[in-house]
Amino acid sequence: MPQVPFDDRGLAYGDGIFETVLMRAGKPVLWPYHYARLARGCARLNIPLPSHEQLQEAWQDKPTSELEVLKLILTRGSGGRGYALPDVVAPRLLSRRTPFVVAPERWQQGVSVRICQLRLGYQPLLAGIKHLNRLENVLARQEWQDSAIAEGLLADADGNVIEATSMNVFWQQAGELFTPCLARCGVAGTLRAALLDQGVVRETTLPLNALSNVERLWVGNSVQGIWPVSVLINESGSVLQSWPQATHDPLQTIGHRLLGYLSSPSQAGT
Amino acid sequence: MPQVPFDDRGLAYGDGIFETVLMRAGKPVLWPYHYARLARGCARLNIPLPSHEQLQEAWQDKPTSELEVLKLILTRGSGGRGYALPDVVAPRLLSRRTPFVVAPERWQQGVSVRICQLRLGYQPLLAGIKHLNRLENVLARQEWQDSAIAEGLLADADGNVIEATSMNVFWQQAGELFTPCLARCGVAGTLRAALLDQGVVRETTLPLNALSNVERLWVGNSVQGIWPVSVLINESGSVLQSWPQATHDPLQTIGHRLLGYLSSPSQAGT
Repeated sequence: MPQVPFDDRGLAYGDGIFETVLMRAGKPVLWPYHYARLARGCARLNIPLPSHEQLQEAWQDKPTSELEVLKLILTRGSGGRGYALPDVVAPRLLSRRTPFVVAPERWQQGVSVRICQLRLGYQPLLAGIKHLNRLENVLARQEWQDSAIAEGLLADADGNVIEATSMNVFWQQAGELFTPCLARCGVAGTLRAALLDQGVVRETTLPLNALSNVERLWVGNSVQGIWPVSVLINESGSVLQSWPQATHDPLQTIGHRLLGYLSSPSQAGT
Repeated sequence: MPQVPFDDRGLAYGDGIFETVLMRAGKPVLWPYHYARLARGCARLNIPLPSHEQLQEAWQDKPTSELEVLKLILTRGSGGRGYALPDVVAPRLLSRRTPFVVAPERWQQGVSVRICQLRLGYQPLLAGIKHLNRLENVLARQEWQDSAIAEGLLADADGNVIEATSMNVFWQQAGELFTPCLARCGVAGTLRAALLDQGVVRETTLPLNALSNVERLWVGNSVQGIWPVSVLINESGSVLQSWPQATHDPLQTIGHRLLGYLSSPSQAGT
């Protein structure tokens, strides 16, 4: 396993970014979106962007299984006096591939999601990018231990829904599909980016107190795909809303096509 | 130099805390305050607190110089699936001692400080502790390159002064000494904690637009001590306010006594 030294700024300050990429038969899925987000993160933090070629080295070895997860970490490297940058920045690029861990099959038909008490703070300079300062997500994920709950739902300080602990959020209202605007906090996922790009979803605002009125709710990311939410649990553990299993799930179909998950039952005949 | 593996959560998420401790003749200065802050950080993040004995191993070797800086990093250790904690948490404690790097001698008489454009976000769950999610400080420190500027001044989203990039802030108003309240953002320094403990300063709020009215302004931490601010520069680089050099600086005297800096000229005869 790769290592970083004590003075690496990724360790010292979370001064870096990462990507978690689904690998199918040794090839990265949605790679242009991952690379675009890396580029945005590097621009925002002022870290030199590695070339496509440098990044491609991370998947040169033969895959050990059909589906793998590639994690890339790019730190600003070592050095500097305190927070000040070193005179010469030498970023450190690390990668690791592990077999894909399958989620419970029934989650494809619907998951339980719990609203977290933690409220995301606003930092527009860091919003959207996948930086290494993830303590809010770590704290939010500690709010429940029940393994039947798939994800926690995170709202901002004004009580607007932003994301799930490790996924983005989507909902249907008056037949249209939406996802939260992430200008002030949250991570802009690559599956979300692809869905926005294709005009499948658009950005808007969803207050927590409007959640029980949405026609459908989903969580999703570029590794697991799209899960419909069947049960929404509030901060104190009570069921706030539930949605029946849909016979037809167009968002999941599109999402799973984007990721190459074609064998999912919900996509049959679409 | 110690290393951490790729899957260490300190690297992956900034899931940990750190301390920077002044070592005088091989002994940590203000240690009870550092240990208290470590304990608060561990409690807040739910990381098992190392014992005094485990921590003391960091300064068992003979010192290489009279003044050193000890940096301790405590991460939650390896593992877990995504943000979820591993079944067994095995924290990783790392330390490194380096010689103290002396700041320009004239900074004891007064420093230039620049107001940063970045506004600190609010996250009461993380405020005060010295966690590893420090991208706000890293970004703020990139706002200037002029080595004559000692520190950047950071305000919160409401425009209240919170801290300096790597120091706390103190000011005098109507003869009394104050420091910002850090309930929603900022790092609660150990020198600041000692000054609060002794009743030398008390917490209140200082809007940016009231800065030019304060009688005196200081920045300080437990390694460098207390520096009076002589010139305050605004976000666009213009001088906002300047203060004459004081013949007598009681805050610096108390601060430097706490750190064992007794030979500083400003402390003569006090």
